[in-house]
Amino acid sequence: MRTALCETFGIRYPIIGFTPSEHVAAAISKAGGLGVLGCVRFNDAGELDRVLDWMDANTDGKPYGVDIVMPAKVPAEGAAVDLEKLIPEEHRAFVERTLRELGVPELPEDTEERAGVLGWLHSVARSHVEVALKHPIKLIANALGSPPVDVINQAHEHGVPVAALAGKAEHAVRHVDNGVDFVVAQGYEAGGHTGEIASMVLLPEIVDAVGDRAPVLAAGGIGSGRQVAAALALGASGAWTGSIWLATEEYLQTMPDSTAMQSALVGATSSDTVRTRIYTGKPARLLKTRWTQAWSAPDAPDPLPMPLQNLLVSKAHNRIHAANDPTVVSMPAGQIIGRIDRVRPVAEVIADLVSGYEEALSRLDKTR
Amino acid sequence: MRTALCETFGIRYPIIGFTPSEHVAAAISKAGGLGVLGCVRFNDAGELDRVLDWMDANTDGKPYGVDIVMPAKVPAEGAAVDLEKLIPEEHRAFVERTLRELGVPELPEDTEERAGVLGWLHSVARSHVEVALKHPIKLIANALGSPPVDVINQAHEHGVPVAALAGKAEHAVRHVDNGVDFVVAQGYEAGGHTGEIASMVLLPEIVDAVGDRAPVLAAGGIGSGRQVAAALALGASGAWTGSIWLATEEYLQTMPDSTAMQSALVGATSSDTVRTRIYTGKPARLLKTRWTQAWSAPDAPDPLPMPLQNLLVSKAHNRIHAANDPTVVSMPAGQIIGRIDRVRPVAEVIADLVSGYEEALSRLDKTR
Repeated sequence: MRTALCETFGIRYPIIGFTPSEHVAAAISKAGGLGVLGCVRFNDAGELDRVLDWMDANTDGKPYGVDIVMPAKVPAEGAAVDLEKLIPEEHRAFVERTLRELGVPELPEDTEERAGVLGWLHSVARSHVEVALKHPIKLIANALGSPPVDVINQAHEHGVPVAALAGKAEHAVRHVDNGVDFVVAQGYEAGGHTGEIASMVLLPEIVDAVGDRAPVLAAGGIGSGRQVAAALALGASGAWTGSIWLATEEYLQTMPDSTAMQSALVGATSSDTVRTRIYTGKPARLLKTRWTQAWSAPDAPDPLPMPLQNLLVSKAHNRIHAANDPTVVSMPAGQIIGRIDRVRPVAEVIADLVSGYEEALSRLDKTR
Repeated sequence: MRTALCETFGIRYPIIGFTPSEHVAAAISKAGGLGVLGCVRFNDAGELDRVLDWMDANTDGKPYGVDIVMPAKVPAEGAAVDLEKLIPEEHRAFVERTLRELGVPELPEDTEERAGVLGWLHSVARSHVEVALKHPIKLIANALGSPPVDVINQAHEHGVPVAALAGKAEHAVRHVDNGVDFVVAQGYEAGGHTGEIASMVLLPEIVDAVGDRAPVLAAGGIGSGRQVAAALALGASGAWTGSIWLATEEYLQTMPDSTAMQSALVGATSSDTVRTRIYTGKPARLLKTRWTQAWSAPDAPDPLPMPLQNLLVSKAHNRIHAANDPTVVSMPAGQIIGRIDRVRPVAEVIADLVSGYEEALSRLDKTR
């Protein structure tokens, strides 16, 4: 399982693993892939800096990357406190009532009142880039398409390539025109922000649209070696994976109170996801639970635009997380979660991807 | 490009091509695939009989199959004239108003008033099976999942295997339990009736769920050899294709007044489809045109259940067809239509599938 991507990044397998957990990211890199750490959880750039120090000390010199969330156009943003004023009372009341109905307790009185997840804010994402470029990162990926051109240039000045997600061929071409080095073709079945076009159709469209100008990574529906083989058959240079890393042992090292989320994933089928705007304000695929169901009830308000929706629900997310109830989880996840049947070490997942890939190629050999 | 399917059917390539056109079906079979003729358009079993006579005379002895539309449970049906009474006046008025607003003319006075498409009715589908089994067909496929067990047995008594569409692994297992011989795994991106799970995830799920009990055909998103290679990498025994045959020269031999539909397909991108209940009452993916858009307007009524919805719109379909306007088309089509850039002969499409497949395998060879 080798493509040009392996040379580019100095990795053994063309498997990129996105994860909010530094323990998972490090384990992916050590197992021969490229771990990409999601930065959106870091409100404080200093905290990200310390975590990247940890990565530098715990990846045995293997390459890794980071993932930011930054729209190409700078939104009118203001301070978080101003944004809070833009959230309608009706929405706050719905969230409060829903949490009560779902049996999600209040946080203990002495819990430090954490601000919403500010990583969605442009200024915060820029601080992530600043900090990350002080570390030996090999990739900056942007989960919201092309970042602003000056950010791309800043990365290039440090010799760091930039990847951007695309759900349509025309977006992919625009990203490459902006200077993006890798396109992540994000199919309908993917977790998180996703469009309407499924990987089987989207991937070759994007590969053909960008041609030799940028390698394309296949995202959406990849959790086995067969799917990596399918992605490479469709023209991808590598696989971008996400959901499968949520159900790993290493994930608990970063976020020990994620056992409810993991048992929900283990119990879920491929039908147990939903594409909805309730997480960020833009359509994103989430694990389907009583929380997502409540938002599709007739009395539920329409989700707010980005970044207001995430500010609205981020404290609810803290309460949901603390409640540790597998039936009430708020987590981006793709349709591939139907194949997750237990929590495993990262290295075992990688080994299975590799052996499944070899089997798929042997099967194809017999068709000649 | 050979799998066990080639032996089973006596075909050169494991490519099954579904089409409502006998000219296309015959051309697919003659080019080395298995042409499967859709029967739903035949209200009169005698007409189907004559068309299958034509197939027998024009396929050079190559194998072919038929496709029926038959729910597993016999619905309370009654005569078409009774069903017409169940259609609300509001719905009729909406259709009439919409056609007027879209500039679709009335049919000329002397047009023979054709009944709705009755192929959706259970009794009519049964008559299709009766007639088809008098011909040397090699496959009966059912576009609505498992047909009733007695119909499966009837086919088996004639030595004819049965295929059934499935959009979930549990449905596939149920079909095989009923005696179905081939499962068509119909991904989200497919044209016509389709579920929510995309091919990349659905296909290996179904392959693993049915195991050795039935070969699985991949449907949804397949229009190039790369996609056939991806499907086989994911574990399929062959490819089930549909949309790509709509834009063939042979299609016009059966339905000469389809030039507007074909130019709409040539102009469409992969974003120009919509999954909606307006065609049959069940979710089906259609080409997005001003007709489908009208049904998603706020003033549009909810579509009726099967079989009423198709009865409601079938006369509208006749008018739309006669109007020959590429902006007002009612046609099931999958996301793969984004890759259709011209109308071609069937043999050229098959040749491209084969050469694209070889290229994909050569590319995979380089990853070892």
